[in-house]
Amino acid sequence: MIASPYAVVAIGNAIVDVIADADDAFITEQALTKGGMTLIDAERAQSLYGAMGPGREISGGSAANTLAGLARLGKKTAFIGQVADDQLGEVFAHDVRAGGIDFDVAPRPGQPPTARCLILVTPDGQRTMNTFLGAAQFLPETALDSDKIENAEWLYLEGYLWNAPDSRAAMTTAIAMAKKAGRKVALTLSDAFVVHGHRDEFFALMDDGSLDLLFANDTEVRAMMQDDDTASAVAALSARVPMLVCTHGAEGAEAHRGSEHARVPAEPVERVVDTTGAGDLFAAGVFAGLAEGRSLADCLTMGAVCAAEVISHYGARPEKDLAELVRVRLG
Amino acid sequence: MIASPYAVVAIGNAIVDVIADADDAFITEQALTKGGMTLIDAERAQSLYGAMGPGREISGGSAANTLAGLARLGKKTAFIGQVADDQLGEVFAHDVRAGGIDFDVAPRPGQPPTARCLILVTPDGQRTMNTFLGAAQFLPETALDSDKIENAEWLYLEGYLWNAPDSRAAMTTAIAMAKKAGRKVALTLSDAFVVHGHRDEFFALMDDGSLDLLFANDTEVRAMMQDDDTASAVAALSARVPMLVCTHGAEGAEAHRGSEHARVPAEPVERVVDTTGAGDLFAAGVFAGLAEGRSLADCLTMGAVCAAEVISHYGARPEKDLAELVRVRLG
Repeated sequence: MIASPYAVVAIGNAIVDVIADADDAFITEQALTKGGMTLIDAERAQSLYGAMGPGREISGGSAANTLAGLARLGKKTAFIGQVADDQLGEVFAHDVRAGGIDFDVAPRPGQPPTARCLILVTPDGQRTMNTFLGAAQFLPETALDSDKIENAEWLYLEGYLWNAPDSRAAMTTAIAMAKKAGRKVALTLSDAFVVHGHRDEFFALMDDGSLDLLFANDTEVRAMMQDDDTASAVAALSARVPMLVCTHGAEGAEAHRGSEHARVPAEPVERVVDTTGAGDLFAAGVFAGLAEGRSLADCLTMGAVCAAEVISHYGARPEKDLAELVRVRLG
Repeated sequence: MIASPYAVVAIGNAIVDVIADADDAFITEQALTKGGMTLIDAERAQSLYGAMGPGREISGGSAANTLAGLARLGKKTAFIGQVADDQLGEVFAHDVRAGGIDFDVAPRPGQPPTARCLILVTPDGQRTMNTFLGAAQFLPETALDSDKIENAEWLYLEGYLWNAPDSRAAMTTAIAMAKKAGRKVALTLSDAFVVHGHRDEFFALMDDGSLDLLFANDTEVRAMMQDDDTASAVAALSARVPMLVCTHGAEGAEAHRGSEHARVPAEPVERVVDTTGAGDLFAAGVFAGLAEGRSLADCLTMGAVCAAEVISHYGARPEKDLAELVRVRLG
């Protein structure tokens, strides 16, 4: 039996989100950066959790969210990431598998526990993320399944993982595996702080032909190009990579692929409940569109449809049948 | 400093809900009783969890949900229930405390783990509950805080706890503590299967004057009176207890208190997302109305307002400011 190839195999942080409502005063009191992502240690996680309101635990992790979207779009995917051998690790593994994503990295015994992201959602729907990386940062190279990576159309890498030495080493090895098998590699820059720490490495990956597709939002693009002007930063960055997708939040998104360019507005949303996962689900729509051989503009529209679904409820995993939403929107 | 008295101190199962969407075919395949609550063992919990879709973990437990509602109505409350010393136990304890409820029962070390309720929500919003009781059933009498019970206007007991010998013994002791201090005692029958197992004990509590208020739905009332006719069962049961509140699902609710009788319709809901916690939040509204000296009809309307809020989203804990909703509805 020949295994059917994966549309996307992704490497990312295995995280359970803990989502609580908060007002802007709480964000200020706790000295949080509204809309941002901050890495926190165990002690800070405990104090912030103690101060937060009642939570909802919903599996998250940027790349895992993207795969959950792809699965709801009917694509075959696999996830590589590290949980601990604890209850939240079981929750994460269950949710990934129950979402139709292949996942067989063994839980890591002992401390630290499974990663969690404490997410404060303000009344405007904006999310402020505080991540305790726990076991996720210790993803070893031995967790890489070369069979899966060699049989995936795309290897998708979460930029956040560049921040820890173990997971960074695993990513580098994974790129080599994919490229040797003639597969394509995509990266999301994840956050401006990731760019600040690893800008030169990312440029090196672009320059040596390792990257076929780069996902970024406008802040990350500006940080990469050290240019305060988004338009010129996008233009300059798009010249360095075969394909660039840049999201602009409520302003929509654009893509550049060689001489092709497309731009779409955001899809309308009745009420923005929780913006967590908007970029992750946008990427899901784009990957699905590429897999279906759609036009660049339709790939972006699929991204926008998926992002609109995920911001209309709590949590970064899709709740509706995304394939049906795309059918309604694009036919 | 004199501690301000509690409106309600409740004893209940400390449970984290695991809520997943499911279609009716899944309910049939898994041989579940749609709309019901079934106790399951660790093995069945594992197999059912493995078959379920991705979940949302939200703290639950019937009486704890009621207290969460009371806290959002501005009432001072305390919870007594047993978690294990594990991550889900931490989640439960955090959510209770973060909701403004006093809770200081020490986690129980070792196995079994914290209770969880696997909840399947069908497209009609109906919930089908499967509870693995774990640590919750081992609530010891030593967990009872006599200071709290003696200083609470109401002691509220979750009928589910009659099903395990340890928690049943704790309930009996708690009733004696409350009555000795001249406090009032309320009980919810929780489920028809609880009534089937403990009908005589519940009648004995009514007959010896231990119960001042009984909450039940129509199925439970019929089971208590062994009478297929709801109206005559309600009439007969209301004669045996100082106050009876009977909920009728989408048909509203009624209350009997001596010669007083009131009946209200259900409050309108835009979309029923997940009926979990409807009865629990109804009880919260009634207790709050009683604490505020409202009319019997207004107590029921407050219950209906709280129930309508909780069924309009996933999870059995209120998300909105219930006090504000009541102000808008009743002034």
